[in-house]
Amino acid sequence: MAVYTDVTADDLTEFLSRYEIGALLAYKGIAEGVENSNFLLHTGAGNFILTLYEKRVAEQDLPFFLALMEHLAARGITCPQPVKNRQGGMLGELAGRPAAIVTFLDGLWIRRPNAGHCAAVGEALAGLHLAGADFKMRRENALSIESWRGLYEQARARGDSVRPGLCAEIAKELDAVDKSWPRDLPQGVIHADLFPDNVFFLGDRLSGLIDFYFACTDTLAYDVVVCLNAWCFEPDHSYNVTKGRALLKSYGKARALSAAERAALPVLARGAAMRFLLTRLVDWLAVPDGALVKPKDPLEYFRKLRFHQSVKSAGDYGIE
Amino acid sequence: MAVYTDVTADDLTEFLSRYEIGALLAYKGIAEGVENSNFLLHTGAGNFILTLYEKRVAEQDLPFFLALMEHLAARGITCPQPVKNRQGGMLGELAGRPAAIVTFLDGLWIRRPNAGHCAAVGEALAGLHLAGADFKMRRENALSIESWRGLYEQARARGDSVRPGLCAEIAKELDAVDKSWPRDLPQGVIHADLFPDNVFFLGDRLSGLIDFYFACTDTLAYDVVVCLNAWCFEPDHSYNVTKGRALLKSYGKARALSAAERAALPVLARGAAMRFLLTRLVDWLAVPDGALVKPKDPLEYFRKLRFHQSVKSAGDYGIE
Repeated sequence: MAVYTDVTADDLTEFLSRYEIGALLAYKGIAEGVENSNFLLHTGAGNFILTLYEKRVAEQDLPFFLALMEHLAARGITCPQPVKNRQGGMLGELAGRPAAIVTFLDGLWIRRPNAGHCAAVGEALAGLHLAGADFKMRRENALSIESWRGLYEQARARGDSVRPGLCAEIAKELDAVDKSWPRDLPQGVIHADLFPDNVFFLGDRLSGLIDFYFACTDTLAYDVVVCLNAWCFEPDHSYNVTKGRALLKSYGKARALSAAERAALPVLARGAAMRFLLTRLVDWLAVPDGALVKPKDPLEYFRKLRFHQSVKSAGDYGIE
Repeated sequence: MAVYTDVTADDLTEFLSRYEIGALLAYKGIAEGVENSNFLLHTGAGNFILTLYEKRVAEQDLPFFLALMEHLAARGITCPQPVKNRQGGMLGELAGRPAAIVTFLDGLWIRRPNAGHCAAVGEALAGLHLAGADFKMRRENALSIESWRGLYEQARARGDSVRPGLCAEIAKELDAVDKSWPRDLPQGVIHADLFPDNVFFLGDRLSGLIDFYFACTDTLAYDVVVCLNAWCFEPDHSYNVTKGRALLKSYGKARALSAAERAALPVLARGAAMRFLLTRLVDWLAVPDGALVKPKDPLEYFRKLRFHQSVKSAGDYGIE
């Protein structure tokens, strides 16, 4: 939650002169996103979001993210829509950073999702997968199974300080997941990070999906279990089968999961838990002692991993 | 620049149910203000600012600040206007903090003010002083001359680490200012912190004044020299007499400075420089070595103080 780059009114006014969204009336740096600097703009045409892309986002990936949002929005997915400048471009430069303007989406994120919210997310995720089917660009998943050993190596020296024996368990699990990882399931555009804070609701209605900066081309069912992990566990880390069933059934109504996909859910869920366990562990170990901001707890995902290791089949998630 | 307190959508929705500004559509924590947590709200009735008052603001002062903004807004000063709840109150509680909603003001702040901006600020400040004349509440200036020795005591042990000999110069200046400080000039409501980032412009037109959380009852002409210090020096800390003249003349057109006020400008300006030198020095020394965020440079105000020590009369500021 930060604004990393300072933008002056003069520079922003000049930048906006390349767009057709009216005069700049106000702008505020917003405490949103951990990777980029975000500003809420109020212009003659309404509210917009300006993003300055900071170093952690690879500049060569930006055309993929922006084109994807445009593609999905054109197919009825309520996601931020990149605003084109007068030359038709979606990417500019401001304060020495790549910069883009997207439409502002109303909506609130839900801290304690119920089964109804989970159903809405399942439906929206399937809609995203279907809408992405004819998207032509590709982006490899930088945090796919191929990256996990590298993350583990980064964490190995001090990982057991977080929990005794953690590294040995991760190493064993990496071998197990690698052995049974499904490599021939349907692929396509996945969001890859559809956590509750990236899904907006107005009342009970899902009003928008945001933050496409992990989106990539990967196994569609993997995206489903990322959501299962993010939405269907209780604060005590126990799996809520009612919520899981709601999410999976609702997804399946819009895009049916094949028998192979259903059979692969447990190992995919173990992988999805491993991915967030590892990135959180690396972030956790990177924070100096005594820092004010604590990163997210990696052990939350260790406990989810434990649950998935105990799962025998998709039935344990609430669907046949 | 921070959001200190997390607010959930449920809590905020409940809070807003006490107001008549429509349903909550979106909210974003904004990186604005160093003392409080601020959120931009988008509701059925438009944009608003929600402020949660953090510990550094004394709760007993909040009714003064809110009533003052309401008083000034009612007299045509474009400042944030507190929104009343259904019970007619302006102050509520949210996430365990005192909280208020104010109207959203369009406008941009100017990094490099020109003489025209300075003239506009002078006029607006006089307008504020006139509009505050019949405001009934009083608030002592917690950073008045009476507070400066206490601040100096806080900084004395390590003050010379910022600049050799600084503490001796401050001690000498405190004696000098104390001796000639004018105590019988016209008093009233002052803003006390009208820096460029607290003044909004749309084009060349001044569109609003914000951040009344240092406002208090004190010498009106002191408020004028706070502005002179904040607006009429160049980045190299030299005084720009064209800007100073513009600010002072424009102020004087709306509210004439008496002969006594004009004669007191140099010592008032030394005091105003001392006040910001001391608070910045205390903040500077409070930051641990190696911290990412550097506070504002206290020596900027030491250089302004030096200039004012050299001033013989109001003529040196650009007016007779």
